[in-house]
Amino acid sequence: MAKIKVGILGATGNVGQRFIQSLDNHPWFEISALAASERSAGKKYGEVADWKLGMEIPGAVEDIEVVTIDPKKIDADIIFSALPSDLALTAEPAFAKEGFVVASNASSFRMEEDIPLVIPEVNPDHLGLIDIQKKNRNWDGCIITNPNCSTIVLAVTLKPLLQFGIQSINVATLQAISGAGYNGVYAMAIQDNIVPYIGGEEEKIETETLKILGDFDGTKIKYASFKVSASCNRVPVLDGHTENVWATLAKNPTPEEVRDAFLKFDPGLSHLPTEPKHPIIVRDELDRPQPRLDRDMGKGMSVTVGRIREGIRYTTLGHNTVRGAAGASVLNAELLKEKGYL
Amino acid sequence: MAKIKVGILGATGNVGQRFIQSLDNHPWFEISALAASERSAGKKYGEVADWKLGMEIPGAVEDIEVVTIDPKKIDADIIFSALPSDLALTAEPAFAKEGFVVASNASSFRMEEDIPLVIPEVNPDHLGLIDIQKKNRNWDGCIITNPNCSTIVLAVTLKPLLQFGIQSINVATLQAISGAGYNGVYAMAIQDNIVPYIGGEEEKIETETLKILGDFDGTKIKYASFKVSASCNRVPVLDGHTENVWATLAKNPTPEEVRDAFLKFDPGLSHLPTEPKHPIIVRDELDRPQPRLDRDMGKGMSVTVGRIREGIRYTTLGHNTVRGAAGASVLNAELLKEKGYL
Amino acid sequence: MAKIKVGILGATGNVGQRFIQSLDNHPWFEISALAASERSAGKKYGEVADWKLGMEIPGAVEDIEVVTIDPKKIDADIIFSALPSDLALTAEPAFAKEGFVVASNASSFRMEEDIPLVIPEVNPDHLGLIDIQKKNRNWDGCIITNPNCSTIVLAVTLKPLLQFGIQSINVATLQAISGAGYNGVYAMAIQDNIVPYIGGEEEKIETETLKILGDFDGTKIKYASFKVSASCNRVPVLDGHTENVWATLAKNPTPEEVRDAFLKFDPGLSHLPTEPKHPIIVRDELDRPQPRLDRDMGKGMSVTVGRIREGIRYTTLGHNTVRGAAGASVLNAELLKEKGYL
Amino acid sequence: MAKIKVGILGATGNVGQRFIQSLDNHPWFEISALAASERSAGKKYGEVADWKLGMEIPGAVEDIEVVTIDPKKIDADIIFSALPSDLALTAEPAFAKEGFVVASNASSFRMEEDIPLVIPEVNPDHLGLIDIQKKNRNWDGCIITNPNCSTIVLAVTLKPLLQFGIQSINVATLQAISGAGYNGVYAMAIQDNIVPYIGGEEEKIETETLKILGDFDGTKIKYASFKVSASCNRVPVLDGHTENVWATLAKNPTPEEVRDAFLKFDPGLSHLPTEPKHPIIVRDELDRPQPRLDRDMGKGMSVTVGRIREGIRYTTLGHNTVRGAAGASVLNAELLKEKGYL
Repeated sequence: MAKIKVGILGATGNVGQRFIQSLDNHPWFEISALAASERSAGKKYGEVADWKLGMEIPGAVEDIEVVTIDPKKIDADIIFSALPSDLALTAEPAFAKEGFVVASNASSFRMEEDIPLVIPEVNPDHLGLIDIQKKNRNWDGCIITNPNCSTIVLAVTLKPLLQFGIQSINVATLQAISGAGYNGVYAMAIQDNIVPYIGGEEEKIETETLKILGDFDGTKIKYASFKVSASCNRVPVLDGHTENVWATLAKNPTPEEVRDAFLKFDPGLSHLPTEPKHPIIVRDELDRPQPRLDRDMGKGMSVTVGRIREGIRYTTLGHNTVRGAAGASVLNAELLKEKGYL
Repeated sequence: MAKIKVGILGATGNVGQRFIQSLDNHPWFEISALAASERSAGKKYGEVADWKLGMEIPGAVEDIEVVTIDPKKIDADIIFSALPSDLALTAEPAFAKEGFVVASNASSFRMEEDIPLVIPEVNPDHLGLIDIQKKNRNWDGCIITNPNCSTIVLAVTLKPLLQFGIQSINVATLQAISGAGYNGVYAMAIQDNIVPYIGGEEEKIETETLKILGDFDGTKIKYASFKVSASCNRVPVLDGHTENVWATLAKNPTPEEVRDAFLKFDPGLSHLPTEPKHPIIVRDELDRPQPRLDRDMGKGMSVTVGRIREGIRYTTLGHNTVRGAAGASVLNAELLKEKGYL
Repeated sequence: MAKIKVGILGATGNVGQRFIQSLDNHPWFEISALAASERSAGKKYGEVADWKLGMEIPGAVEDIEVVTIDPKKIDADIIFSALPSDLALTAEPAFAKEGFVVASNASSFRMEEDIPLVIPEVNPDHLGLIDIQKKNRNWDGCIITNPNCSTIVLAVTLKPLLQFGIQSINVATLQAISGAGYNGVYAMAIQDNIVPYIGGEEEKIETETLKILGDFDGTKIKYASFKVSASCNRVPVLDGHTENVWATLAKNPTPEEVRDAFLKFDPGLSHLPTEPKHPIIVRDELDRPQPRLDRDMGKGMSVTVGRIREGIRYTTLGHNTVRGAAGASVLNAELLKEKGYL
Repeated sequence: MAKIKVGILGATGNVGQRFIQSLDNHPWFEISALAASERSAGKKYGEVADWKLGMEIPGAVEDIEVVTIDPKKIDADIIFSALPSDLALTAEPAFAKEGFVVASNASSFRMEEDIPLVIPEVNPDHLGLIDIQKKNRNWDGCIITNPNCSTIVLAVTLKPLLQFGIQSINVATLQAISGAGYNGVYAMAIQDNIVPYIGGEEEKIETETLKILGDFDGTKIKYASFKVSASCNRVPVLDGHTENVWATLAKNPTPEEVRDAFLKFDPGLSHLPTEPKHPIIVRDELDRPQPRLDRDMGKGMSVTVGRIREGIRYTTLGHNTVRGAAGASVLNAELLKEKGYL
């Protein structure tokens, strides 16, 4: 069977590089186009990408000629977008209009009423919005988005807690610097330091979570009704967002019951290539999860949970640029393929 | 006026060195004795202290001959204890029995019913326990303690919130590695990493806070009745504990009213040499407080607050080995002196 | 063909864990025994190893029962030793006497006259010392050692320079904290800091290099005659030693000629499973090699060279616990197998 | 006596802030003008300076209105320039032409034949170039420069070695990130990493050192004739450049003789307010100097030396933005005042 052709928008950046890593040797997809700014266009990817992952550039992309972000220049069945949100705002609809399926990591359209904001393990049925979206917008293609990195990690752990009746969530995040992009944080700003603020991040967690965990009734999403309150911090960690969660749950489960719910969590997606064996890993050691030790579990796609205590309190962790960005989009694309949207 | 003679127990360690720094050129106190383990006894402090502060050892202590931790070997009016809790358990009562006033940073006696656990800006009246303690234990001297480092920072900020009726507190801490002592954290454990657990820390915050904010009726402390729930993390920061606080307040003040309460907070202690001009500093920048920029404010004795938002949520920060340890004991000693206990 | 059975001494430590990683799915070797201290013996490896690599413990070793460091308790064809040097001093000869081939990463016997100190790409012929060693010591087995981590990186790059007549070497090292073992460096000692001293390291580089690059005349090693002068620094990097080298060369080659010699370096070992495709990688970017980006090249077995300038000066880098420790021993074992010593 | 009025060009940046710190409560100088880019002009310094030192902005400058970099807008007796080199190229001569004495930290004019490149402890007599410069250029004022940060640290230690006949110097530097300016290094570039290249740095060390240590015969500088070869690395340290030096010395002194030369070094400048008690501090511990522990010695103006060994090899360290930048300019200004140029 021929592989599905994939184009990447914003291919030279931090998340773009993670897309290439996530798609390396992918059984279903193959990269057919890499798009970036004018400055890079016309040159080989290996020359213009300032490759910063501790592995060699996959040979399959090194010699691909980079094109501009233009639907006419790209031959692909699906488009992954790693664009900054301002560029995504015009580029993604242009691609959708031209008939492309766009799986986007950008925040630009996440909260639009007819755009699905999907984590395959949490709300796969929200894909139903695609038909509505196409009709609404008169598009041949469509846009599907994945949540913000810190939201994904939280939302994956909230899914198995829904059964206990979530009343409110407080979450303090300790977020890695890669989340701001390669050039997003100066060394003088973060070494031996904490920055207790990340622009827009708290709002994203507080709103996206409610959309993801909302109900889709066939026509629209009814947001979840509990309250999420977030305090976000940038910490001197390269990759991996750690989150301290307080979940007020109506049914007052014991920590053991919560642990059990995490352990039993099985979204039935093991046939998707990027889905890890365990979407949630439970660690019982007192001092886990830790970003450096746990971020790469399940090839960066597992979310790790630990320190489940009365409260209910727990700590969770996921790889922000894999589980929280490129891997999330790729997993969404796999779900689209399985559901017949590709 | 002759200065008050001061002895330090555990003088060679991390907190011991901070005591020496805090007492350097102190207007009321002068160091007369430095005590440490057998291994160091008989040698000059400058030879045995593996001095790790980025300043020269004060000349006044460099040549002091270190003695063992023995009341008979020490001539002093007050004893500062920077001992580990297991050693403090026997040493501190021995000194109190011999008539010494012991201002302790150790956790061993903090929660004892007749031992004051004091932050001068918060609960100076708890010193009244000293008389009861002396009587109970038939001691000529006494023990007075300061709270755990992360507790102090939190409790200072809760004091001005009492007027709003505290119902519950959630706090996530991002604690510096110096809090574990110089040898407490391996570099391989914390570089590019977070450790979401600090042994005993959450319990200390959750219990000590209630004692400090409790009422002293002349005979005993009635603990505050709200609930504190803490999640503690070790972060790769040298000094300065950052804390994300959620305070549920009965009177539902606005963030502006809370900010105002912090700004107006004046414990009336500016005559004490170690008391900073502003025990609480409010920063209005979105990205403050930050440990590297704010920990040394007020010579390390100010607590900085920022990001006051609906919730009520805020972020606070203090220097853990100054405000949260050595400086806290020295300030307690100054209060003792002022109140006539020295 | 049945795989060769392998035992690991010191299996629970930092380098021991790297041995397990290096041997995972090895085509020739399979782990049959894991030995550690009394404290761990009798328990499953997965229970006692405080596993600190960012990957899961290979399933094949998780349930192996750890034994004490005793030749009678181990069934294996070759022994890898990750013991500290004091323990290696007695344990390794005990194993060699009992007929085991011991491939050691310890420093204890490296400089003994009849013990080969081998880097397969540099001095494979030194294996000839094994016959002399067995005869001298009346051992059925033997000991073969690999050099100190920082020495290996340097020596690999000096091999292709021999043709230019090495007259003297100055080398400044910037060494990762993992080189000191998991518990070897306190966070307070190295964060925001450099420690310009590593006990014994400079001596090892200055002497081991001359033995490795010495000539074996069939009976003994004649040391290389140039002078090596090293200044070693510990830096806040997790893995990967960086080295600035000044090489005074008799034939005064140009930087281009030196670059060419590095590029052409081919020790002809590509049939060994652990040998990387490029034992020396040359990077032409001005700012490479960098430890975080280059340490994992060739699965951690490649040495990367850059900044080749007049002088001759260059910068080199290798993974200290893979290329410089566990991987070095495994590669030596592969060479032993190929040469018929196993 | 009225204080000398001082203006600072580039007052809002990293080095500009260090100038303000160095001049706080200065006995001879008082800040009368702060100049920065158009963007900041017309506003109070406290509003536009993104103050990043862990101390409060000195009250004396907080309310000063920032002006543009224009000689007509500044009333001062001396100008300190913390400008980037491209801006300094036109701005500094404009000030000199208008009669200002400009003490510059920029690299733009350091190597000009008639511009003194001065370290007061090393080559105070080079100030003699000022008269020649004024005549040459027909300026009422003049420009005097201090060397590059890493050069200063090295050159201070070479001065007492001149007596032994310096034949060649190899130096490997481990440079702090603040040396690149607050925005000069991304966190993703340097955390858990080393960058073995700093643009232009090696050339500056190799040439500036020879001018500083050259002889002034009353008309021009005859450069020192030995060779300096540098390899520069950026390391994850906030402040403080560490340097490993190999000095080939004609008279072959012992390490003890070299140590003695460092200890006896007394440039006779203790009457200058910024001159530290010990311009060179010798540490005999095996593991010193270390940037975090030694950079602030002598209020950041002392250079610390250690690990003096056969070779002659030694390690030296100095605060790059104090001793190596702002403090260096201020010390030069004090020398100018003493010599009658102000």
